[in-house]
Parts: sequence; structure tokens; C-alpha cells
Amino acid sequence: MSEVRRAVDPTRLASRITRDPFPASRKVYAEGPHGVRVPWREIALSDTIIQDSPEVTRLEKNAPLRVYDTSGPYTDPQAAIDVRTGLPKLREAWIAARGDTEQLAGPSSAFGRERAHDPATAALRFAQPPAPRRAKAGAGANVSQMHYARRGIVTPEMEYIALRENLQRAQLPEALEQNGGQHRGSWFGMRHAITGEFVRQEVAAGRAVIPANINHAEIEPMIIGRNFLTKVNANIGNSAVTSDIEDEVDKMVWAIRWGADTVMDLSTGKHIHETREWIVRNSPVPIGTVPIYQALEKVNGVAEDLTWELFRDTLIEQAEQGVDYFTIHAGVLLRYVPLTAKRMTGIVSRGGSIMAKWCLAHHQENFLYTHFEDICEIMKAYDVTFSLGDGLRPGSIADANDEAQFSELHTLGELTQIAWRHDVQVMIEGPGHVPLHMVAVNVEEELKHCFEAPFYTLGPLTTDIAPGYDHITSAIGAANIGWAGTAMLCYVTPKEHLGLPDRNDVKQGLIAYKIAAHAADLAKGYPGAQLWDNAISRARFEFRWEDQFRLALDPDTARAFHDETLPKEAAKTAHFCSMCGPKFCSMKISQDIRNAAQSQVAAGDLKQELARKAEEFRKTGSEIYL
Amino acid sequence: MSEVRRAVDPTRLASRITRDPFPASRKVYAEGPHGVRVPWREIALSDTIIQDSPEVTRLEKNAPLRVYDTSGPYTDPQAAIDVRTGLPKLREAWIAARGDTEQLAGPSSAFGRERAHDPATAALRFAQPPAPRRAKAGAGANVSQMHYARRGIVTPEMEYIALRENLQRAQLPEALEQNGGQHRGSWFGMRHAITGEFVRQEVAAGRAVIPANINHAEIEPMIIGRNFLTKVNANIGNSAVTSDIEDEVDKMVWAIRWGADTVMDLSTGKHIHETREWIVRNSPVPIGTVPIYQALEKVNGVAEDLTWELFRDTLIEQAEQGVDYFTIHAGVLLRYVPLTAKRMTGIVSRGGSIMAKWCLAHHQENFLYTHFEDICEIMKAYDVTFSLGDGLRPGSIADANDEAQFSELHTLGELTQIAWRHDVQVMIEGPGHVPLHMVAVNVEEELKHCFEAPFYTLGPLTTDIAPGYDHITSAIGAANIGWAGTAMLCYVTPKEHLGLPDRNDVKQGLIAYKIAAHAADLAKGYPGAQLWDNAISRARFEFRWEDQFRLALDPDTARAFHDETLPKEAAKTAHFCSMCGPKFCSMKISQDIRNAAQSQVAAGDLKQELARKAEEFRKTGSEIYL
Repeated sequence: MSEVRRAVDPTRLASRITRDPFPASRKVYAEGPHGVRVPWREIALSDTIIQDSPEVTRLEKNAPLRVYDTSGPYTDPQAAIDVRTGLPKLREAWIAARGDTEQLAGPSSAFGRERAHDPATAALRFAQPPAPRRAKAGAGANVSQMHYARRGIVTPEMEYIALRENLQRAQLPEALEQNGGQHRGSWFGMRHAITGEFVRQEVAAGRAVIPANINHAEIEPMIIGRNFLTKVNANIGNSAVTSDIEDEVDKMVWAIRWGADTVMDLSTGKHIHETREWIVRNSPVPIGTVPIYQALEKVNGVAEDLTWELFRDTLIEQAEQGVDYFTIHAGVLLRYVPLTAKRMTGIVSRGGSIMAKWCLAHHQENFLYTHFEDICEIMKAYDVTFSLGDGLRPGSIADANDEAQFSELHTLGELTQIAWRHDVQVMIEGPGHVPLHMVAVNVEEELKHCFEAPFYTLGPLTTDIAPGYDHITSAIGAANIGWAGTAMLCYVTPKEHLGLPDRNDVKQGLIAYKIAAHAADLAKGYPGAQLWDNAISRARFEFRWEDQFRLALDPDTARAFHDETLPKEAAKTAHFCSMCGPKFCSMKISQDIRNAAQSQVAAGDLKQELARKAEEFRKTGSEIYL
Repeated sequence: MSEVRRAVDPTRLASRITRDPFPASRKVYAEGPHGVRVPWREIALSDTIIQDSPEVTRLEKNAPLRVYDTSGPYTDPQAAIDVRTGLPKLREAWIAARGDTEQLAGPSSAFGRERAHDPATAALRFAQPPAPRRAKAGAGANVSQMHYARRGIVTPEMEYIALRENLQRAQLPEALEQNGGQHRGSWFGMRHAITGEFVRQEVAAGRAVIPANINHAEIEPMIIGRNFLTKVNANIGNSAVTSDIEDEVDKMVWAIRWGADTVMDLSTGKHIHETREWIVRNSPVPIGTVPIYQALEKVNGVAEDLTWELFRDTLIEQAEQGVDYFTIHAGVLLRYVPLTAKRMTGIVSRGGSIMAKWCLAHHQENFLYTHFEDICEIMKAYDVTFSLGDGLRPGSIADANDEAQFSELHTLGELTQIAWRHDVQVMIEGPGHVPLHMVAVNVEEELKHCFEAPFYTLGPLTTDIAPGYDHITSAIGAANIGWAGTAMLCYVTPKEHLGLPDRNDVKQGLIAYKIAAHAADLAKGYPGAQLWDNAISRARFEFRWEDQFRLALDPDTARAFHDETLPKEAAKTAHFCSMCGPKFCSMKISQDIRNAAQSQVAAGDLKQELARKAEEFRKTGSEIYL
């Protein structure tokens, strides 16, 4: 297990990163106040061919579909991107204009200063990291979005999000008119207008978070809350066993291409600091970390040697690099640890087990808990969002929803209220492994005991019997928990429990989770979510094969699968497909039926009309599609 | 689109079929009354290594796990199988002993007689099909399992099923004791004993069906009903565009290997009859078909030319070959067809669209509806089970749960009562494409309007935006609808909407659906379902890597994924894995915690004990796992 890392070669890295736009897609930008420019992916659709009679054919235009786009500038061929300098700093002017931060001369953490000039890691280092910003000293030094929200300020970040989340407004007027009112009613009461003010209210109430460290000015702001689109997180990161920095930057760009709304860098090993800088500088989505992993590296893996001082320095180090949210396992209390002893699978959270080990070894309370207010002081100086870790989450179906898990959840609620007293943003992490009938109660308990702070769950897996397919076992749980009100779903890849995900696993995990999140949004009745389904369904019914591929979550695979059976170009316009062949094509027969029925209006005319149509159909109908 | 089929070469076919047993697995047979021998797959597990102290290690045996096995004799290396003669006829003696059937000299259908001696298809023909059986003429000529059940008879098929469904009884006494009471309580009230008498009651009430044509004596009896294990169907079948007979027989064997409880042969094209004979004779699971497909072939694809007489001959032809259930689209009534005209995607059922076309062209009521009692007469003479087709199921999220769909469902309920008056078994087909929040009501409506007849659904897909991944979009819906009480889930493969599934797609579809079915069984609290999860969770916690692979739904993939990151044999016994590396292994830390906590018994001693353990832990604990 070598710790030697390959030097970062920016040219090689740049050549690896996928920058192709999606098929028939282009970036369009919606303009808002404060110079807000929200990117959408606009998918062009082909015309519908309407056969008015055997002789007369006409074309009808289909409005393009605009969809929420997490891929950042990478899919914009116009954007000049240099991995050595990182992405443009979209938020820089907004942050500066608030006048409540100061730019430091350099890192203020001991570790950050040490590593900035360490010759041993020079070849791995991002050459010119920006000088960190921090809230100006003094009473209330707080630059969190929650702090602004509670003072009634609608920030540019909030305006950006309001525009971005509004799927209906994104569509062209024709599409709106055409599809308006088609999406289903909801028990969720989500028929609110998504405005900057609405975003502000949700953040002020703690029901939503905007992970947006002032040192991560590169991000395209996004929100996590159950009254918004359900979000998806992708975990990346090397381990002591495998992978290098370029791999991880490439995986991050790949992950956002396939829909990751945030990315957690879970790297371990000796070069976490350098890896993170490359990722943050080049990421348009918020980055989360688990700082205890790096702290543990600093004490050579000996959990007992962890100290508050070391951890504090790590938080500052990472906050000044621009990490947007920290997983903090402050709810693993000493008295809860024995509750896990009789479990089928004990403690399965890495952070949770590290803190449990520390608590047991010292017979002291978890220092993350005892220093929680100190942590809040750091969080608000940079606007880092808490992701309160579920260190005692179940690791198997047998352990789901047990006393250890729910005891910790109650403590996370207590900590939420402390953080909120500091105007620090909070989300709550959740399980894990939960059978289907025990999923919804997790959300109910979280909303109740954590006061509606956004819930962020890992899956959950709904069975343990399918390693190799845990993206599926958990997508089932994720769709259900998302529907019940979970705000963000942490993906699980096919490699879960078996190995580290490679590029293809990252993609498979993301597609499964975009499906789960979208299924949840449909079930919640999120305004406009169904426009995408409607567009692809209509394309399918009209045999617009190219449009079906373009509108697919994964256009490449949809096309490849089609071509395996019917590779010829002609088959792309065929009015049937390989599943049924021409004689059995129900879609084609349906179109005949629709044509036969379309002139009927009044219900009273129905029988007569049908008789007439039956005759006409017999004369003209038969085998149009041979 | 050639209709030429390759001659069937039995030697080549036999060499293609996968007959390897699963790793570390063997067939064991449970004996019951009437010569009943129920096959189980028994998975051997390795010993747990217990480290009592740094010096003292001991081994603890783990009882093997027995699981429900659909794979038939193919995975038994002792079984002699000859594809030319087909599988042994397990049920032959039971059927003969009932004395209510007669063996015919040959097929009684016109088509069956014609094809038995057609020189053009000689090279495709199964050489010696068994002479068909039929109920003896006379009043009440009825050989259905429902007929027996209602007369109080517990058939050998019912005894077989009672033994087969009993997951707890399958385990060795130790395992039972060890795991008893671990599975979760249920809202479903399923804590009944699964006895032959219970099976009889469920079949008599119409709540369950046993698809078991007297001409398919080769099957290992199975049951479909919501108070039993959730079942999975796999569709296979060639189309006019692709594939041959050997491919389909191979796919059938492959499908049951990966867990298909029944297989539907949806072949179209000129040689449906010959393809079916090969499949039925070699299948240990019930085979379903959609007879209208073959009827349509017989009229060269012209729906208007279909007649009752032609259809009737097709039913008899297929019943005498041994098809166990027929999808019959008798609920597509003339007056419902216009309800589909304003849909996003019209009619998407092939059978439904054929019948709708026929109804419109003739302006007459569906002949399957008007001749329904005539169909019942055929069904009961061979014990073919109705699968009442949902010809008007929705083909898109936008069309879910609409008037057309539910109107047809009400008609299916009416037909169910007619079939039951004839003691003919019935299940009801369901959708299709349904967003998550509209799934459960499908089951509620079906149970209410179809009087608790078993529900058999296709998916449903919970979103339309992911062609290429519809095994996942639909596994989400399938798990939910299974939990709500659907008895059998028809799989969807990754190729759905794009192309015909190949061998790998069949496997991917099945794994996704076994996951959905098992997730549903866990949620329903099916007695013993959780034993499998518990076995793999315990193996995971104890780093028994080989056992994790063996216990996986797909052992081959689990092992391959593990080996991609850590290929060495030594890694199979490593007390950590590639995900976290040795320092971050939460499972290992958990074991330390368990050891530290295990001697605590009384709650009062807790604090003192923890302090003592903390001290001990500091002295001995640290890096055991380096």
C-alpha cells in the first residue's frame, strides 16, 4: 500500500476530463438580478410528422426541453477552462460586495501553512490557491446564508437558486402552455412559487441549506431542502489502497456530468490536503468532507491520539480551502456506544467508529460534542454547513431503526438547535440499511426531533442480499425516503461493500440516484418535474427515436442499446421497434385509434361516430405501417 | 426480416445451457407426502474465527443457509438432462392417480395436428412430444387446482408448495433457533403456518393460483398469491426481427437460474408453436403465453381477420402443449377504446391494441369478452390459469391510473367472478407506468374490484426519463407494489423500450426483480425472509469474504467486483477492505467495541464497567488489525 502519489500533470488531466456537450444539447443561461446567470441544458427536439391523409404530410415543431444542469462550464464548448487556475469565481463579487469578509495573507491553520511550502508535496500542489477569506472579526462575525436570511436579506445566491429550481419558468412559453397543469397533485403542499423570498424563508427557518463557503466562489449556488428538487450527492476519494489526484478530479467532473448536485471528497491517505485543493478549485458544485478522516491521518491512524486542538486546526484548514459542508459525528455519545454491542453489524460509519473508539479509550465524552459551540464559531466565519453525521446508523437490515440510531438522532436535534442559535446551517445525515416498511418513519422522526432540518440519507439499502447491485437495493429505498421528504440522497455505487468505485461505477450510481430523486420529485408533485417525462413519452409515442435518446438520462446507453438490435440508420425513423416488430406495434395501432377517435367531441355522438369510424377504418386503416 | 429459423441442434443446445451449480452450493431435497421432493439450494458457510485472546483462537461453525430454488434440475450435477426428451415428469403420477383425465391419441386442435407432421418445420420440431391429456368428458369436467381446493382436497401440488414456501422450516434447527424471532412484525398479518391446508384455503378463496397445466407435468409446483413469497416472471421470446429457438430455450434456463418463478414465452413469428414445445418440455417453472399473438400470426398480422374459431383452436393447441397460464385481454371493451384517444401514449399493450383494433374495425364487442365462458370451458379441461390482461394499462407517467385503465379493471373483476363460477384460476395483470404516489392505490383497487384475485404487475416504472435503465425505474415501483400486496412482478430488462433482451439483459432484469421481490417480502414481514439478510450481514461483519460472495444474489459479480480492487487471495481473509483501508475500518473498530462491552450485563454496572474497559482497551486495544 504505497503512499507515493503520481505528480499532477495538468495537461494530462485536462485531456482526460470529459467536456463533450450532451447530444443535441446546448447551454442556455437565464439572467436574473445581481448578474445572476443560471445555466440550463436545452435539449433540441425534432419535428413531429403528422400524416393528415395518405397524400398530405405536415411537420409540427416541438419546443426544446430545458433541464436542471449540474455539469458546470465543462459541458459548454464556449467556456475556456484551465485546471491549473480552476473555474471562474462566479460569487467573488457578491461576497466582496457584502463587505463583511477580509482576505487573509495566507492560510491561518498551522497545517495549511506547513503544506503550502512543503517541498515533498510540491509536485502534487495546486500552484496558486486563492488567499482565503474569513468573516471580519467582531461581534456576530457571521457570513452564513442563514444569517443573512434571518436578517431579511435575499442574497444573490438565493436569487440564483430561485431561478434555477423553477422548472416551469425554464420552459419556453409554448411548452408551459402545452404542459401546464399536467403534473399531479401532491400531499406535500408544494404548489408555492419559487422566488428569492421563498428561498430566504426556507433558509431562515432551517428547512433548507445553501452550502456555499465564501472560499468556494466557483460554485453555481444550489439548495438542499424538501421543498425543492431532491438532490443527489456522489462520494469520491482515494484510499490508502488505490487511486491518485488526477483520478479524483476527473471523477468529480464525471460525477457532475451525470447529475451530482454535491460531491463529497472522502479521500484518505497522506495527500488529502492537496487532493482537496484540486477538487475544490475545479468544482462548480459544493464539496463536502469528513474532517475526522484527515485528523486521523495526522495522528497516524491512532484514534486515541486525536485531540480537539488538532481537529480544530483541520476544520480551519479545510474551511479556508473552501469546503462547503462538513460531516461532524458529534452525536456519537459515550453512553450510546454500548447500545451497539449487541447489533448484528456494530458501527459501520467510519467517523462514528473512530469517535466511539476515542470515547471508549478515554472514557470521556466525544470532543465534537463538548466543543460543539467552538465548531459553530468556525462554521459561521466561513459559512460551512453542518452535515451532522449519523455515526450510529445501522449497517444491516437487522439493525435498522434501533435504539442506538434513534438516540443519536435525538442528540443531533439538540445540536441543530445550538447551531441555529449561531445562525449556522445544518443538515442531518441518515441511514443506511432499512427495510421498506421502516423507511418513512426515519423521515418522520428526523423532522420531529431535528425540527425540519434537511435530511440527507445514504440510500437506504432495502435488503442486504445483493452486493454488486447495491445501487439498485438502495435506489428503491432512496426513492421512497425522498418521496417521504428527504432533501438529499447520497448515492451508492455497484461497488458498495466490495471495492472502490471507478468511473463507470460513479456513473451507474448517479443514474440510479437521479432516477430515485426524480421518482421522488414526481411523487411529491414538484412543479414542472413531469415535463421531462411528458417530453420523452410523447417522443416515444411519435416514434421520434433520436428524441428519445436525447431526452434519456443517459443518451449514450439508450442509443447503444437500440443499435444493438436495430443498428441501421433507417431504424431511427421506423414506426416500430425491435421489441414487437411491425405487426405487433401497439403504439402504431394506438395512433390509428386516436386518428379514428379524434373528431368525436360530444359524448352523445360517440356510438354513431364509432360506427362511422369503424367503417372508414376498415376501408383505409389496415397496414399503413408495413 | 427473415423468417428462416436455424434447425435445432440438441447437442449444440445442451452445450450452451448453463448447468454449473452456484459456488459452495448443493441441492438438497425435502421429502413430503405423496412422494413430494422439494429442492432447496443449500449454501455452505465457512467458520467464524473467534480470537479469545492474542494467543487463543477458536472456530465456530456456521449453519448453511437454505434458499428457495427456481433453477430446477439444471443446477444439480447429479441430474441427467436430455433436452431432446425434456425434464422428468414429476407430476405425472399425481395427475394419473386423480383418475379424472384421459390421454388423447394426439393433438385435438386443427393447428396442432397440422404442425405435428409439417415437413417444412421438421428440423425445428421437438421430436417426441407427449400425447396430450384432457379432463374426461362429462358434467364438471374440471381438473383445476381450484376445483380440487373447493372440494376440500389438498393435492400433492399443494403439499409441495407448503413445504417449498416455508423458509423457516428449510433451515437447520440451529439456524432456526439462532435467528428465530429476528424478522420484523408486519401489518400484513402473515404469521400463519404455511401448511397444505393453508395453501388449499388460499386457492379455494381465489387469493392464490397454482399455474399447473396437466400437460406440463415437468414443473416443480409453485404458487402466486399475496400471502406467499413474492414471485417474479421473466419474459422471453423471439420476434420477427431476431433470435432463434435455441436462444430462447437457453434464455429460459438462464432465467430460472437467476430466479424466474415463471417464464412467459412472448415469441412472435412463424414458428411460435415449435419454439413453445421446446421451452415447455424443458421448463421446471410454469410457462405463460399471450395466445392472441399466435392467432394474429395465423391471419398474417391482420387484426380484423381474427375470429373466435381461430382463437379457440389456438387456445386448445397451446393448452395441449402444456402452457400453464394464458394472458387474455377480455377486458378491452369497445366502449373503453375512445377513452384512450386523448392519452399521452394511447394503448401500449400489444394484445390490448390488437383487440382494440378488432373492436373498432368490426364495431363489435371484443370476442374474448363475449366468449368468455367458452374460454373457461377450455381452461378447466387442462387447468390453464387466466392471467386477465390489462390491455389498457398506461404507457407513460402522464396516463397512470386513468379512466381507461380503471374501467378495464372493473371488467376484469366481473370476469373473475365468471371464471370462479367455473372453478377456473385467475390472476389479474396490472401496470405499467405509475409514479410512486399512485402505486399503492392500484393494489387497493385491484383487491377491491377483483375480489382479492392475485395481482401480477409489469413493473411499474416510476419515471419515463431513463430508457436503458428501466430495470431500475421499475424495480422501485415493483418493490412498492409488491409490498402493497402484488403477488407476482413481471420483470423489465435494461433493454425495455429500446430492443430485445439478450442473455445479460435477462440476468440484469432478474437480479433487479429478485431484489424488489425480496425487499417486498421483508417489508411484508414474510416469515423467514430476513434469514438470508442476517446470514450475509453476519458474514460481512466477520470479514468472511467468501461467504459474502456465496450468499450474494449474484455471487459471480460480487466476487469479480471485489477482485477488481483487491485481487489477491490474501485479501479474501483480510480484516478490512479496499473501501476504507486498514485504518478506517469501522467493522473492525466495532468488533473491538463489542469485545469491550460484552461482559457488561447490568445497566447499573455500566459506567464503572466502561471505565474499567476503557483502561483495558487503552492497554491492549490499539492496532490489532495492522
